[in-house]
Amino acid sequence: MICYLDNSATTKVCEEALEAALKVMKEGFGNPSSMHSMGFEAEQTVNKSAECLAGILGCDRGEIVFTSGGTESDNLAIIGASLAASRRGKHVITTRIEHPAVRRPFEYLEKQGFEVTYLGVDPEGVVSCDELENALRDDTVLVSVMHVNNEIGSVQPLKELGAIIKKKNPGCLFHVDDVQGFTKLKMSPRSMNIDLLSVSGHKIHAPKGTGFLYVKKGTRLEPLMLGGGQQGGLRSGTENVPGIAAMAASAKMLCDKGEEDRAALYELRKDFVLGLSDIEDIKINGAGSLEHYQNGNADEERFAPHIISLSVKSVRAEVLLHSLEEADIFVSAGSACSSHKRAPSEVLTAIGLEKDLLGSTVRFSMSRYTTKEELCAASQKLHEIIPALRRFVRR
Amino acid sequence: MICYLDNSATTKVCEEALEAALKVMKEGFGNPSSMHSMGFEAEQTVNKSAECLAGILGCDRGEIVFTSGGTESDNLAIIGASLAASRRGKHVITTRIEHPAVRRPFEYLEKQGFEVTYLGVDPEGVVSCDELENALRDDTVLVSVMHVNNEIGSVQPLKELGAIIKKKNPGCLFHVDDVQGFTKLKMSPRSMNIDLLSVSGHKIHAPKGTGFLYVKKGTRLEPLMLGGGQQGGLRSGTENVPGIAAMAASAKMLCDKGEEDRAALYELRKDFVLGLSDIEDIKINGAGSLEHYQNGNADEERFAPHIISLSVKSVRAEVLLHSLEEADIFVSAGSACSSHKRAPSEVLTAIGLEKDLLGSTVRFSMSRYTTKEELCAASQKLHEIIPALRRFVRR
Repeated sequence: MICYLDNSATTKVCEEALEAALKVMKEGFGNPSSMHSMGFEAEQTVNKSAECLAGILGCDRGEIVFTSGGTESDNLAIIGASLAASRRGKHVITTRIEHPAVRRPFEYLEKQGFEVTYLGVDPEGVVSCDELENALRDDTVLVSVMHVNNEIGSVQPLKELGAIIKKKNPGCLFHVDDVQGFTKLKMSPRSMNIDLLSVSGHKIHAPKGTGFLYVKKGTRLEPLMLGGGQQGGLRSGTENVPGIAAMAASAKMLCDKGEEDRAALYELRKDFVLGLSDIEDIKINGAGSLEHYQNGNADEERFAPHIISLSVKSVRAEVLLHSLEEADIFVSAGSACSSHKRAPSEVLTAIGLEKDLLGSTVRFSMSRYTTKEELCAASQKLHEIIPALRRFVRR
Repeated sequence: MICYLDNSATTKVCEEALEAALKVMKEGFGNPSSMHSMGFEAEQTVNKSAECLAGILGCDRGEIVFTSGGTESDNLAIIGASLAASRRGKHVITTRIEHPAVRRPFEYLEKQGFEVTYLGVDPEGVVSCDELENALRDDTVLVSVMHVNNEIGSVQPLKELGAIIKKKNPGCLFHVDDVQGFTKLKMSPRSMNIDLLSVSGHKIHAPKGTGFLYVKKGTRLEPLMLGGGQQGGLRSGTENVPGIAAMAASAKMLCDKGEEDRAALYELRKDFVLGLSDIEDIKINGAGSLEHYQNGNADEERFAPHIISLSVKSVRAEVLLHSLEEADIFVSAGSACSSHKRAPSEVLTAIGLEKDLLGSTVRFSMSRYTTKEELCAASQKLHEIIPALRRFVRR
């Protein structure tokens, strides 16, 4: 049995998405910008996909801008919005636990003369509303806070943060990187006062090379890519029609089953974590830890259903990863999205994890296709190899 | 019979590409940045695809940067290289017949304080080597000239242009938009002194959402997208592995059959054009016109095998396009790549086409799957409808 527990790195393309992509590639292959009926058909596919995603978010079709993925969405939102707003101010705010696709654009803005405030997080990886309120200024033009953290699964209080931003500085834009949260947790940009929301296709069982950015009507953005003026000029380039159709199909499927899947994943997560309680010197990071479950105060508002961050004292993450791999159990050391980087995780540092655990943390990440059997196999293997690896280290 | 003669707008995904994409989506769906074997397998797919494309271009695997398509490749090359070189100079050169994905980035550079020289073309749409030589200055940092024009199919003397650039200003970079030429005509960046070469997947029977940029080793570029540092930091974001594999598969197939296909397409083109000789008041634009064929001086170095630009006096392009469409013949009015734009074509203006023909020009574009039967049907239909439409207009 293959236990693929690295769904926050990427997911298998689901049947619904595969079918939608294939249909477009085989039959509806026109260019949406062509003036004839084959172009019109392709344009309709793009429009219907946008409608589907807009329906999920409770927004308008015209507020969906298709991109090549989460990284492009984040770059377009952060750099595009900040540059477009730079006459009003050059102060921006983000957190210390963002994905590199958010962090690097902020570093770029710093080089362009912006001042960046980085919000810290509590030991469970959650931002403080008070800290944001104090950081906001009259010249703040953008706040970017992720929904679900990709390494430890902490969930940010977006609704509260959005309300604070719009109360203190109504002109300030609110961007949310929802790459790890979309379809997993409920999302309503309108009621959360979100102006820009980044989504990636390949994290939700659509093919790689797809994503979108929700752009609230009236939000000004400098485009990243210039050319034929597709998508209202915000993102030139022929639309990835098969990928777009596939992403809409997988998002629809996931959202139709959202409530049910969410409950099932929280249950699987709890069982998995409690099942590890007899292993010594391990730690589950975030607000859904062993202690939280045992004390009955695991608050699902503060952690996502599908991510488990496990720190194992005296065992290197890479060693644990490869030992699990020998049993066909696939996990990540930290996050997989940064290409082979070796520096200590900035997220784990931000939550104040003990230094000797920084290099000893692996991530298990589930999807709706994850089964109890897979998690049992992983748990059993952890019980076997952790003591064995420690014996090896101590010799 | 469907006559799809709009292959310069987009192409049908070929079997080879479809199969490669499907295989990756179904089996090899890992994230190339993941540290386990499923990640390694995906990384290998990316590397092998890069090797395949590098083999075609006669370059190194590491010189291939995968993008989301031609527009991204052009933007990354032009904006990325110019900004990276701006300390050495702020003068750049391009032509009056570039695709908007090139033209708009140059307009952006103008706003950033660069001086842009636009080279004109002769009535057949070909740039003059002398004009380039005169335009080059010590502070010129980039020259961008397309290989095959997307509207009229003119071919630029890249080898000569490259030699002139490197002779007069060895530090000046040479970018070529090869979106319409790649696999159709021979391409050798090394021997043509090309530093940057843009390619789009969906013009060569690969799925939309794929493309690449050849970046000569040692060429400095500012990335467009920042994040996880994939592809040597030049293009962050999880690679579109199925699209990449598909593009390599289609490129390989096309290049394996390159010589044969090229000869066959030139032959089809010639027959089609000569077959129109009895229609009054029409004009085939570029160096492969009716007169060129009739006078025996059609120089295949100056026009591409797959594009036919036809101007029909007194008939609006849209009317002709829709009349052909009624017979399931799909063509373009000008170029399809700009989203529904209505302004007169800058390419047709640049070649000095008579004003009353600017809005009366349609493009037929072929692929290796285009048959003699399709072209006969199109020719027959043109013979029928052009006189009929003119009678209608003159009434």
